[in-house]
Amino acid sequence: MLKNWNPAEVPPKDEVKERLKQARAKLYELQMKIKEHKLPVLVLFEGWGASGKGSAIGKVIKNIDPRFFKVATMSAPTEDDLRRPFLYRYMKQIPETGKFTFLDGGWMEDTTKECLEGNLEGEAYEKRIDSIRRFERQLTDNGYLLLKFFMQIDQKEQTSRMNRLLAQEDTSWRVSDFDKWQNEHYKKCRKVFNRYLNDTNVPASPWYIIDAENRRWAELQILELMISGIETAIKNSSRSVPILQNVFPMAKTPKLKDVELEGKVLTDEEYKEQLKKLQKKLGEMHNRLYRKRIPVIITYEGWDAAGKGGNIRRITEALDPRGFEVHPIASPEPHEKARHYLWRFWTRLPKDGHIAIFDRTWYGRVMVERLEGFCSENDWQRAYNEMNEFEKELSDWGAVIIKFWVQIDKDTQLARFTDRQNNPEKQWKITDEDWRNREKWDLYEEAVDEMLQKTSTEFAPWYILESVDKKYARIKALKIVIEQLEKVLD
Amino acid sequence: MLKNWNPAEVPPKDEVKERLKQARAKLYELQMKIKEHKLPVLVLFEGWGASGKGSAIGKVIKNIDPRFFKVATMSAPTEDDLRRPFLYRYMKQIPETGKFTFLDGGWMEDTTKECLEGNLEGEAYEKRIDSIRRFERQLTDNGYLLLKFFMQIDQKEQTSRMNRLLAQEDTSWRVSDFDKWQNEHYKKCRKVFNRYLNDTNVPASPWYIIDAENRRWAELQILELMISGIETAIKNSSRSVPILQNVFPMAKTPKLKDVELEGKVLTDEEYKEQLKKLQKKLGEMHNRLYRKRIPVIITYEGWDAAGKGGNIRRITEALDPRGFEVHPIASPEPHEKARHYLWRFWTRLPKDGHIAIFDRTWYGRVMVERLEGFCSENDWQRAYNEMNEFEKELSDWGAVIIKFWVQIDKDTQLARFTDRQNNPEKQWKITDEDWRNREKWDLYEEAVDEMLQKTSTEFAPWYILESVDKKYARIKALKIVIEQLEKVLD
Repeated sequence: MLKNWNPAEVPPKDEVKERLKQARAKLYELQMKIKEHKLPVLVLFEGWGASGKGSAIGKVIKNIDPRFFKVATMSAPTEDDLRRPFLYRYMKQIPETGKFTFLDGGWMEDTTKECLEGNLEGEAYEKRIDSIRRFERQLTDNGYLLLKFFMQIDQKEQTSRMNRLLAQEDTSWRVSDFDKWQNEHYKKCRKVFNRYLNDTNVPASPWYIIDAENRRWAELQILELMISGIETAIKNSSRSVPILQNVFPMAKTPKLKDVELEGKVLTDEEYKEQLKKLQKKLGEMHNRLYRKRIPVIITYEGWDAAGKGGNIRRITEALDPRGFEVHPIASPEPHEKARHYLWRFWTRLPKDGHIAIFDRTWYGRVMVERLEGFCSENDWQRAYNEMNEFEKELSDWGAVIIKFWVQIDKDTQLARFTDRQNNPEKQWKITDEDWRNREKWDLYEEAVDEMLQKTSTEFAPWYILESVDKKYARIKALKIVIEQLEKVLD
Repeated sequence: MLKNWNPAEVPPKDEVKERLKQARAKLYELQMKIKEHKLPVLVLFEGWGASGKGSAIGKVIKNIDPRFFKVATMSAPTEDDLRRPFLYRYMKQIPETGKFTFLDGGWMEDTTKECLEGNLEGEAYEKRIDSIRRFERQLTDNGYLLLKFFMQIDQKEQTSRMNRLLAQEDTSWRVSDFDKWQNEHYKKCRKVFNRYLNDTNVPASPWYIIDAENRRWAELQILELMISGIETAIKNSSRSVPILQNVFPMAKTPKLKDVELEGKVLTDEEYKEQLKKLQKKLGEMHNRLYRKRIPVIITYEGWDAAGKGGNIRRITEALDPRGFEVHPIASPEPHEKARHYLWRFWTRLPKDGHIAIFDRTWYGRVMVERLEGFCSENDWQRAYNEMNEFEKELSDWGAVIIKFWVQIDKDTQLARFTDRQNNPEKQWKITDEDWRNREKWDLYEEAVDEMLQKTSTEFAPWYILESVDKKYARIKALKIVIEQLEKVLD
């Protein structure tokens, strides 16, 4: 896109001035429409060093109420960032509905820099591009407007701007070593930029190359593109999005009704003996995981009263408390609901070497949210693939993902509900909602079966824990966790 | 406290076993009481290297449902932490109501380490102790249970534990260089620890020295102390807390009725000319602030429709978008309401060199929360001092704090409300709540006057912006900001 790039002719000064005036007023007006339509807008500024990204953002935001935007300057990733998946620090920054986030440099800058340093080539580069495309598509599919600007100046202009900045002590610090390097290796950089722009120029979030030699003209191009982008997005706001075909290798999973529950029991003695042995083993493994910096994600879904809590405790008892975290997932808070539904899980990812245990998960999307109508049919149907993609991202990052479905039958649930109801110490565990959910057992079973079939990928398969005898389920969980961790530790 | 420390005799093995059994069951039971009484519990583990902090935490949490606690391991502060006030990274970790946070090493470790490195002495040390005491008192005054354990072992025991760990490759990484240094300089360390323990041994959050030579006995001491701490805190849960006398030097502030509004106007020409000049100047200063790493906090309070938003915009227009953030403050979200009311402001503090602008602030505590009964009388009466302490902390950190009250009269407000109501583009700015608040003008005026009198400290005084003519108020705000920044830049 940059090679042989032919910018449009710059309009006469008066015309630019007049159109700028109109565009500024229009953007100011549109911010209320954005709020009204609950449109989240992510504006990404990429481009050459000294191309004026920062000052362009500064001009754009003058037309927006400060309550409606955030500017995020993505400097070099921190040590903490480096211990999470590549996209983590960007996902953290996505705006709430009705608001803007402006990113001064983003995933393009990081990616192309790694390329230029020779640290991202061949298959690794392709994987990166894949995950960036998925990330962007997931945003736009979920109603985000993603605007991507590349600020283009030629080598001569870059040289002269940098010289101007370097000439004064007050501004010289703004020119980084990387900027200088870029200027000296302009052609090489252009090639890498060009390839990246081509590879990520997708219909739902195309690249806009901004002719940035003239600052006012650059501002005008950006404003007009933002305006048309917003207007299009508002028109699209209630459209439904195509469901994508599955591209991931799937593992086999049974239907719930075919899960044999009978006979899956342990005596107290068997249980105690095995528990002790397995917990000891897991404890030792945790140490090695930590040192090898392998992240682990264990998720629990299952019927109410199936025994998730107790099962989780038998895992955590074995672990060093400094190296794990349990995330109980309830209904989302307002600031979570106002973002991509996976945001609250992205932001809870473990550091490498750490274990995150989720007590209920993102799969709420295709269970409770589906059945209670908290999202549209298009939303939950799309979610199977989105969650597979999310887990693929985690798996590629190096994470071990272990997903448990804790299974009991309807009679066992009734017995446990009744017991909770009659036992003052356990009453807090049972709510009217539990009883209401129970009435929908068959609908849930259907939804769970569909979920198990569609999201049991080879890299993140589901495991069924037969939990009529909770002891049996706990031992099985421990064994599976140990087995999976052994694979990566050996 | 450590010198001449005489631990109690260790009870016989059988007794320890029996009491442990009871204590574990009791703690398990108490977690529901904690939830019920909405008690937040912060448990701090400090102590010698190899004294078993981590493993003690591991044992305690076995008795707690993983949904009710978090363990935070405070390793060395990150670069981001270092760019905030010292207590920032601890404040971030405080638990929600009804939950536990366990800290593996905390503000004692950081502080004593700095002492031992020779970087914290004399007045600086005393300032640090002051701010730690205030921090702890603010937690306990606001209903937190703060339990502080120091795990004590003697030099011989430490040596032998460390040798055991170092003997095996699998565990040797657990002994840090600092641990080794500590062991070699045991007496020096004990002196520093001892002084710190004495300096921070306050009635509401006393230190408990745990005899940690025997692990089961250590566990028992901790469990029993936690239990009695929790039981006491529950008994205290509806008590009111003494209001403290003011200890800060105060600046003079007028009563609102004495603020002269008439004649504070600018012509369009005066306004335009001054605006341009002042914004240019502020823009240049922003650069220098950034390089000198001075943090700036600008806060806005004022009557509805007084012109806060437009005033803020005239400031932000002048700033580099990469160096400031505007925080619009609405009513707190559930996870914010479940913590100390200053938590959501602590976590929004700027990095050094950055500017944070708050559109409404912590002063909501003594205005809307006071008048609408969202907190108790004791809460808001205590808040004046708490907010002064908070700002003192920020000021000691090096922050410039500029607090604006945007003032108009009742008639002006009515005119603006009516205008908003009649103008379709502005209707979103006016709600029923605004009209309801207007009815309480006199009560608010009384509350504001009290606030201005009690929180206009020398290090963070209030400035009144007369805003019947918004242009006048904007120019005045710019001038004050520039004037205050000049003081620290020169």
